[in-house]
Amino acid sequence: MSINVRGYAALSPKGALGLFHFIRRELRPDDLLIEILYCGICHSDLHNVNNESGYSKYPMVPGHEIVGRVTRIGQNVKKFAIGDQVGIGCLVDSCRTCLSCLRGHEQSCLNFVTYAYGSKDKQDGLVTQGGYSESIVVREDFALKIPKSLDLIGAAPLLCAGITTWAPLRRENISKGCKVAIVGLGGLGHIAIKLAKSLGAEVTLITRSLDKADEAKALGADFVIASGDNNQMSANKAKFQLILDTVPYSHDLNPLVSSLTANGKLVLLGYFGPIEPSLNTNQLIFGQRSIEGSLIGGIRETQEMLDFCGEHQITAETELIKIQDVNKAYRRMFKSDVKYRFVIDLKTIESE
Amino acid sequence: MSINVRGYAALSPKGALGLFHFIRRELRPDDLLIEILYCGICHSDLHNVNNESGYSKYPMVPGHEIVGRVTRIGQNVKKFAIGDQVGIGCLVDSCRTCLSCLRGHEQSCLNFVTYAYGSKDKQDGLVTQGGYSESIVVREDFALKIPKSLDLIGAAPLLCAGITTWAPLRRENISKGCKVAIVGLGGLGHIAIKLAKSLGAEVTLITRSLDKADEAKALGADFVIASGDNNQMSANKAKFQLILDTVPYSHDLNPLVSSLTANGKLVLLGYFGPIEPSLNTNQLIFGQRSIEGSLIGGIRETQEMLDFCGEHQITAETELIKIQDVNKAYRRMFKSDVKYRFVIDLKTIESE
Repeated sequence: MSINVRGYAALSPKGALGLFHFIRRELRPDDLLIEILYCGICHSDLHNVNNESGYSKYPMVPGHEIVGRVTRIGQNVKKFAIGDQVGIGCLVDSCRTCLSCLRGHEQSCLNFVTYAYGSKDKQDGLVTQGGYSESIVVREDFALKIPKSLDLIGAAPLLCAGITTWAPLRRENISKGCKVAIVGLGGLGHIAIKLAKSLGAEVTLITRSLDKADEAKALGADFVIASGDNNQMSANKAKFQLILDTVPYSHDLNPLVSSLTANGKLVLLGYFGPIEPSLNTNQLIFGQRSIEGSLIGGIRETQEMLDFCGEHQITAETELIKIQDVNKAYRRMFKSDVKYRFVIDLKTIESE
Repeated sequence: MSINVRGYAALSPKGALGLFHFIRRELRPDDLLIEILYCGICHSDLHNVNNESGYSKYPMVPGHEIVGRVTRIGQNVKKFAIGDQVGIGCLVDSCRTCLSCLRGHEQSCLNFVTYAYGSKDKQDGLVTQGGYSESIVVREDFALKIPKSLDLIGAAPLLCAGITTWAPLRRENISKGCKVAIVGLGGLGHIAIKLAKSLGAEVTLITRSLDKADEAKALGADFVIASGDNNQMSANKAKFQLILDTVPYSHDLNPLVSSLTANGKLVLLGYFGPIEPSLNTNQLIFGQRSIEGSLIGGIRETQEMLDFCGEHQITAETELIKIQDVNKAYRRMFKSDVKYRFVIDLKTIESE
């Protein structure tokens, strides 16, 4: 027994996405069947479709910023009921017994993580398929509760962009009185501003040009600095306790390190590859500073983030699209032409 | 009033050190006058004599691994008495009012740190001179108590090499069950092995060749890995919670990052300059790992380290030299021909 599903898939590297019929597993005792309502488009979907890591598997149905409603539950499900509104992010399974999992860091599972798409399921070995589709089957422990107060469209990007920026903010105990900088105003950056501000921090956006200054302030930024302006960067030396760098391409990290205060931390979230120009250790050692890589967050902290967003009415700024427009959206996203996250309306797959 | 002192100084960049007569300030109310018995030779002394940072001041009397005896005290001195055995490390003053100082991180003073040599004194503006000399005048708050149980020659290098490796071990709460790697077996590395082992960790030395394996094990290392052996490095992937990198020259950090466990930290202690080859962010982000720069430690934690060394009978392995042999020692240190720290016997200045 299995479930027939319609989705949009890439059939080969860099190929356009198109309608794809596939099968979801029949529910196991601890599974939920979820009708997908909305799915955000993350920058990493584009990387994965283009096989930039070399590990992509095709056909690939992308999507890991999923919100929907529970329509059926396995016999042992305890936490969810039919009709609940739920979210699914990047993680759909992990070993749950290693030290990382026991600490709630399933994303660092020492055995292996099962991602929403492109991973092998731990039990049947089938490749997982993501949220650009009408329904999904997921183990209940990896489903999140979406607070009733949140708009579902704006909530979708919280499942990846939200937790990616929330996790380092919480690890550093960002609260009132802290000075935080966010580098880059895109999908991650705009949510990072909202989260950091709601946690009480003084928030500075560091961006390529000041064109975005008014928008950034409307989102909650207290200050905006142009990254290429040496005078502005120098004026902010040794200022920030935490910098979240959301920029997805190679750029000079040295001026950012210099703008960290003693014991400050630069967290890399968006760019995968060699750091060029070279990072200089002087500013790290004399300033007692650090650079950290951070990948999404665990299930417990994702729920904590969603609950916080529910209390503070935080959602992403989105542009809702039909699934038929996904390839156009990719082209626009590649040019940074989106404010700030595309979200697919899965109802539109009905017309296929 | 002032105090006439003999020392050994460099008079110009890369110049040989020779006998130098100079003046120490008369004691202020909170100052100690210390007869210097021994002074370790730190790798950074060589960098400073050679003006590698561009900020060196001449004449320069190097030396910041100082042990001696109190011979006179200012009228307000409370913590020390004449005859006490004391240590002076890299720090001789800081503002003591900024957030870093209040947290006990005087080395990160947000105003400015006064180093044992080559800094301007905060009150009289005179350039400080270090421990290659017969006596020194220091504010009592920056003097350390040397436990009576410790050999004074072996204790001298603890004032810099000891605290430099102790501070990150303590920040990461290294204790029984932790797996720690030390990169490089020199002045810092050999003390790091002893400290990590005494804290209860399983200790691995990562070194260029296995020639040093027996020595490292005699010092306390449980395992020794050759950094250039890809098989050995691969076999130790995702193993270490903490790696202390003491190597003072440019080298590839990527294999070290890969050998960190999830949430592990690579701490850079020895090399100042651009990281080459480029660091790749993939291993940082997917492994949730970090790279930190660390500079010595604060006064409170330096005392804590000395007390720990007193309890566990930890001292450096040293080669005692006459001050007349300091230039020869520099040449040998440059070739890594020392096990593991030169210490100058300051009595030998009497023959000048």
